[in-house]
Amino acid sequence: MIEPLGNLLRLRRLLDESPFDALVAVSPENVTFTSGIVIASQKWARDRLALVVWPKSGEPAFIVCNIEEPQTRRDCWIQDIRPYVEFTQSPIEMLAATLNEMGLGEGRIGIEKNYLTAHYWDELQERMPRARMEGCDAILAGARAVKTEAEVERLGRAARLTEKSLLAVFATIAEGETEKSMFDRIASNLLLVGGDSLSHVYVNAGPNTGFPHCDPSRYEARRGDIVNADIGIYFGNYLSDIARTGVVGAPSEEQRSVYSRLLEVHLECIDAVRPGRLASDEYGVMKNGLARVGIPFSLPHGGHGIGLILHEHPTLDPRNGAEFEPGVVVCVETRVRWPGQVGYRIEDLVLCTDGAPRILTGFFDNSRLFEI
Amino acid sequence: MIEPLGNLLRLRRLLDESPFDALVAVSPENVTFTSGIVIASQKWARDRLALVVWPKSGEPAFIVCNIEEPQTRRDCWIQDIRPYVEFTQSPIEMLAATLNEMGLGEGRIGIEKNYLTAHYWDELQERMPRARMEGCDAILAGARAVKTEAEVERLGRAARLTEKSLLAVFATIAEGETEKSMFDRIASNLLLVGGDSLSHVYVNAGPNTGFPHCDPSRYEARRGDIVNADIGIYFGNYLSDIARTGVVGAPSEEQRSVYSRLLEVHLECIDAVRPGRLASDEYGVMKNGLARVGIPFSLPHGGHGIGLILHEHPTLDPRNGAEFEPGVVVCVETRVRWPGQVGYRIEDLVLCTDGAPRILTGFFDNSRLFEI
Repeated sequence: MIEPLGNLLRLRRLLDESPFDALVAVSPENVTFTSGIVIASQKWARDRLALVVWPKSGEPAFIVCNIEEPQTRRDCWIQDIRPYVEFTQSPIEMLAATLNEMGLGEGRIGIEKNYLTAHYWDELQERMPRARMEGCDAILAGARAVKTEAEVERLGRAARLTEKSLLAVFATIAEGETEKSMFDRIASNLLLVGGDSLSHVYVNAGPNTGFPHCDPSRYEARRGDIVNADIGIYFGNYLSDIARTGVVGAPSEEQRSVYSRLLEVHLECIDAVRPGRLASDEYGVMKNGLARVGIPFSLPHGGHGIGLILHEHPTLDPRNGAEFEPGVVVCVETRVRWPGQVGYRIEDLVLCTDGAPRILTGFFDNSRLFEI
Repeated sequence: MIEPLGNLLRLRRLLDESPFDALVAVSPENVTFTSGIVIASQKWARDRLALVVWPKSGEPAFIVCNIEEPQTRRDCWIQDIRPYVEFTQSPIEMLAATLNEMGLGEGRIGIEKNYLTAHYWDELQERMPRARMEGCDAILAGARAVKTEAEVERLGRAARLTEKSLLAVFATIAEGETEKSMFDRIASNLLLVGGDSLSHVYVNAGPNTGFPHCDPSRYEARRGDIVNADIGIYFGNYLSDIARTGVVGAPSEEQRSVYSRLLEVHLECIDAVRPGRLASDEYGVMKNGLARVGIPFSLPHGGHGIGLILHEHPTLDPRNGAEFEPGVVVCVETRVRWPGQVGYRIEDLVLCTDGAPRILTGFFDNSRLFEI
């Protein structure tokens, strides 16, 4: 049996405090959060739903397609497994039957409206005309946002492996190496160190650093070029996400200046990850800080939570009123880009504690522009 | 500018024949199909919509978040780019404004109801009360299902690289190698040969072969064990997906028999990929064939289309009335599993032509159980 790592007691408490009679997890991250297991094909067979039905009272039920049934029975703590045959049976029909059986045919049901598709949503409403169906995305995201020690440990390990993989490549780039070659070496390292799979690997040099998500090209790094990378892996179902910036050869005055100003604001943002502060405050710290040091900023967020998915609650955006509390883990990403010219990025994983924030990505020193 | 590889003329024709005044592409695959480019963050920032609005008459418009605007302007053939600021502006509000501007405020609009989330769907209906909004998933899937020569070429290369990566490992497994080690070697090969990223890598030995999606373990392959693999990569935005089965040492009579009966049915299924046949016929060939040779079968499908996503139209399931036509490419996957005991899988990429089907995965011979 696979032990769920997340804080299911917190979920239980949030559900108890909520108006819902049951929650229905639909997304891969919330299915894994509640069940502890991964239904692999959720990623590539979008219509093949896996659904965890979590009632306020009573035991949860797990609706999965019959392909996934044997592994689910072997691995999952949830005992009430209900398989359906894809294409010939509707998972939503089974969901309605399950909710009715739980006595919730006229209940108030929370479901992930930010994941469930319009097609299934319409079907669900038709099949359960008397139930009151609403989005419960915020409850699930809120439960996941505060990590357990086991999750922090997992995220920290994932981050450290990612840092090592990147440092090993940055330390060995020679003038003339192509972006593609750097990409291949980083990707290979990420698997060698123990990554289960790649999440994202962006590594660029020179003018390509001015774009956020530029595929690796045949561009050869030249003396004086900025090289930046933003990379992550899947590691035991959890994600990593870090960014570092270097320069080929000695940095120019201008490069040194941009980086040190960016870093100054980055450290301010990290320091602001404290209990009681809001995600939107964090955005303000970044926006005001960058304005003060004369670096343009028009991006919609300054980072994000991370866990079972790459961008999770809380996003550090100007509208997000979520309050930090101990156990919240965020990626603070401070960056500047002049499209097609140059870009700098620094991203670190930060744990909110009772006291000062704890940086979980301290292996690859970011205190100066890395000299390649 | 990046040239779209898919058959946009077919899409145009299907739209002309449809009752819709415009189609709205929402999913990563259909955004890439219509625009030619990849909006990378669609994969990890689910709420950050990218939308291609494709009117029956007039030019398409592309709604993207401002983070992705510079790359979109640089790479995309669509000229009408409309950026929004995530978190502070609603992409659905911008979609409504765009449709209204096109004179379609009371029009009949097709949108991907199998991808758009319930939350955005409700918002869209509120913002456009006079429009008639319906799912157009089948039109987009139908357009993508018939591949262009350029797409067949890309899929074929992706498949061949995948076969080579797997063959190189199967050829060098020694008794005692762990699943994790095989996994690492295959994953590394898939990147070395030119894969942009991993899609899925399942490689198992002994009892674990009896599950479809079993993570690699420390289990060490023993003499007499079945070893099977089901793997794929992303290669220039297209996917690959192949499966092969081997045995450590000489196969037993029983193993040889299961494999040869499975292969017999597999080849029948491949031979049935001909113009005019239906996807559901294909399922019937597999089901009846396996019954005839005495192999149990309870799976809901016998394979699937492949292209910009792993499982695309047509799925080879008993309810799918899609007719094969030249240019359709499917993964035929024939497999048997006794959970926790043993499993065999063979999966090949097959192109429907005017005449006999063309197998695009002929590099790693499947004509007998591979002897490890």
